[in-house]
Amino acid sequence: MSTPSLPNPPLRYFEDYPAGAVFELGNIEVDPLEVQSFAERFDPQPFHVDPQAAAVSPYGGIIASGWHTASLMMRLLAQGFLSPASSLGSPGIDELRWLLPVRPGDRLSGRVTVLSAQPSRSKPDRGVVITLVEMRNQAGETVLSLKPVNLLRRRPAA
Amino acid sequence: MSTPSLPNPPLRYFEDYPAGAVFELGNIEVDPLEVQSFAERFDPQPFHVDPQAAAVSPYGGIIASGWHTASLMMRLLAQGFLSPASSLGSPGIDELRWLLPVRPGDRLSGRVTVLSAQPSRSKPDRGVVITLVEMRNQAGETVLSLKPVNLLRRRPAA
Repeated sequence: MSTPSLPNPPLRYFEDYPAGAVFELGNIEVDPLEVQSFAERFDPQPFHVDPQAAAVSPYGGIIASGWHTASLMMRLLAQGFLSPASSLGSPGIDELRWLLPVRPGDRLSGRVTVLSAQPSRSKPDRGVVITLVEMRNQAGETVLSLKPVNLLRRRPAA
Repeated sequence: MSTPSLPNPPLRYFEDYPAGAVFELGNIEVDPLEVQSFAERFDPQPFHVDPQAAAVSPYGGIIASGWHTASLMMRLLAQGFLSPASSLGSPGIDELRWLLPVRPGDRLSGRVTVLSAQPSRSKPDRGVVITLVEMRNQAGETVLSLKPVNLLRRRPAA
């Protein structure tokens, strides 16, 4: 599962994520082999790893682990939203929703809307940005939504 | 990342998850090579993939992607909590919190507490179980907590 490092991650600071801003993240394919390998390792439930069992499940066929879908979302966030110059990690996520099944071969696109951006009260070098992240499939249906909290460095004084 | 299928997943139905029940999930190692390969693919931020950058980050060294930690939690859920006989997947997660960094070589143990268990109003064959899942490291510190919603089949009539 190794891939080359990111070619051109964005250069952004806390001030570049104002409330209301929308970021389009591009898209990523749900690789069928990775659906299988991810689920075998992390989520070996029959509807993720066993085509015959999945066919008679309520899903009617193999679906990707929700954690795989979330990890693909993270890939898009890392390459198109977060900046190595400012990202300090995340304390957590609220309201993660797996809204529709994701299937091998789907292509998912991501969008981030900034819900709030507040300077930290305790640490003047950073701010707290809460976002709504939505992943849609090739039919335009939202398959995943979540509200991550991001800790981001403020822009250094010039 | 391929692994053999689960040897003996539990046989449980909705009725086997009453509110207040506690399930110990055993433990799992945070493999340093997997920390690297997971982050390169899904979360290539410097403090996950670049030892030199991680050393001067607030984390003082490489930490696992929070999505990797969550995926290891899912592995423990699949092998020690959910049953292929009844698990119908999850509509989502509330209050996911990455409380402390997880480092390569850590060993994480999981515990599930059932917060509520309600028969479905619309589908008589299933129930909705809300849980608190906690992952602790080898020092006994809680590193991850979350509240997943699980859809579980009811026990078939005898």
